[in-house]
Amino acid sequence: MSTLLHVIEVIGVFVFASSGLVEARRKKMDLVGVFTVAFITAFGGGTVRDILLDRRPLFWIENYEYPTLIFIFCILVSPFFRQLRQVVTERVILYADALGLGLFSVGGASLAYAMKMPLFICVMMGVITGIFGGVLRDMICNEIPMVFRRGQLYATCAFLGCWTYLGLTLLGTTELFSVISGIAVTVFLRLMAVRHDWKLPG
Amino acid sequence: MSTLLHVIEVIGVFVFASSGLVEARRKKMDLVGVFTVAFITAFGGGTVRDILLDRRPLFWIENYEYPTLIFIFCILVSPFFRQLRQVVTERVILYADALGLGLFSVGGASLAYAMKMPLFICVMMGVITGIFGGVLRDMICNEIPMVFRRGQLYATCAFLGCWTYLGLTLLGTTELFSVISGIAVTVFLRLMAVRHDWKLPG
Amino acid sequence: MSTLLHVIEVIGVFVFASSGLVEARRKKMDLVGVFTVAFITAFGGGTVRDILLDRRPLFWIENYEYPTLIFIFCILVSPFFRQLRQVVTERVILYADALGLGLFSVGGASLAYAMKMPLFICVMMGVITGIFGGVLRDMICNEIPMVFRRGQLYATCAFLGCWTYLGLTLLGTTELFSVISGIAVTVFLRLMAVRHDWKLPG
Repeated sequence: MSTLLHVIEVIGVFVFASSGLVEARRKKMDLVGVFTVAFITAFGGGTVRDILLDRRPLFWIENYEYPTLIFIFCILVSPFFRQLRQVVTERVILYADALGLGLFSVGGASLAYAMKMPLFICVMMGVITGIFGGVLRDMICNEIPMVFRRGQLYATCAFLGCWTYLGLTLLGTTELFSVISGIAVTVFLRLMAVRHDWKLPG
Repeated sequence: MSTLLHVIEVIGVFVFASSGLVEARRKKMDLVGVFTVAFITAFGGGTVRDILLDRRPLFWIENYEYPTLIFIFCILVSPFFRQLRQVVTERVILYADALGLGLFSVGGASLAYAMKMPLFICVMMGVITGIFGGVLRDMICNEIPMVFRRGQLYATCAFLGCWTYLGLTLLGTTELFSVISGIAVTVFLRLMAVRHDWKLPG
Repeated sequence: MSTLLHVIEVIGVFVFASSGLVEARRKKMDLVGVFTVAFITAFGGGTVRDILLDRRPLFWIENYEYPTLIFIFCILVSPFFRQLRQVVTERVILYADALGLGLFSVGGASLAYAMKMPLFICVMMGVITGIFGGVLRDMICNEIPMVFRRGQLYATCAFLGCWTYLGLTLLGTTELFSVISGIAVTVFLRLMAVRHDWKLPG
């Protein structure tokens, strides 16, 4: 089961990195920009969380094969960018991104909870882990962060997913069950929000 | 007297949060964006200072009722945004913001001084605490930070207020007296700068 | 020899600070903005590196004469900005900036290597130290960071210079030799890239 979570995590990292790669290419950045933006999108959220909580070494320094892989990934993928965009459709990105959001958010909340942070802080750390990669990506690309603009629910799904995780944990369920439930709620809400165009009041 | 300072601090946090809320609404952000920008405006300066000085837990993690209150505040206030703008006039915001600037700046300088930082670093930490919430707010809202543009003196007031605090402390006055003097100088200079349109050379 | 490196370092700090000063003036910022942007350009890269690696006190807090000097420098230089631009031509800035890039990058990599970081992380820390001052400068000035846009090789020169340093160190040469070789490679590649208009694929 831990292996499954690890596999999902790797998927999450590459999904987030790809979304950074796409955005960097849209802004006509060169390979250095593409790698940096891909990297920051994938690891920005976890890095901000770890700095706020003073956890070291950082996730991507401890697992330094991740940045190396993303570096190779960017070099290999760049020449085939046009073809890639046909295989990796908007639909695929949507599903993968929802999964990444769920995993990163609940993972971040679970980590803060293990450090005995107050509940509201745990949820904030979860949401920060899930969304801040994209926030930093948009700040570097000189845009108002997508998650703050009025669009279909995104951070709110992570928020509710983290509370689901915490609620179940406080009720005494196993860590594995509450983690998977939190992720499932996040992903489900996100997909529903896109399908039914759910938005927060402006 | 410590209670008085605490009350002023809470006022400062809510004033800064409100200025973030107003800016986020102007940019047509949704509730998530409004809360995030309000939060970062209120706690961004202190967070940057604490990260630079390696102080943990962060102020708002230790006093986690603050982010919770700001969260509730944003939810309650959002529907009444138009009415709120009539009660909380530009004039009220100006006074409150000047008070917040003074309190945050001198508080930051005092904190760095207690950590035995060199004097110039103490002043820098004070100014960072006072202005960086607004700087991060403007960066997220995709604007050149207001305090760096040529306007009526703002950071300069905090700069002089922090030196006032440090000078008095070095002369051996009580902490309370030098803190209040520093705050008073900052607030007075800021209000004078607005009234007489004082600007720095471009 | 250590004195030579120290002199080069001071030159690097002032070169980077000057490039921030020029950019801030172009954006019509006032003295506070000019100092802040100059400061962040000079120390931003090293500060991000130190925060990621959890090194304290920060370089510019330990050597607090640097920020003080930059502050005085900004005040003295501001009135003579037009004349300064005639003496400090684009050509001078190009050479000085290439030197600063080489020194900061290889210095950052060397520092991470001394902390026994994995090789790829050492190179990343080197590149971050070299380029992130400029990245933060451009983010504050509300631009897409220059180094990520398609231009003549910049970060790539630092990347290859850091690998040169690491390769030589692993081969067992003295620290001094590998540091100077890394800097020389970075500077040489950067100057060649500008002269022959070398660019990365888009």
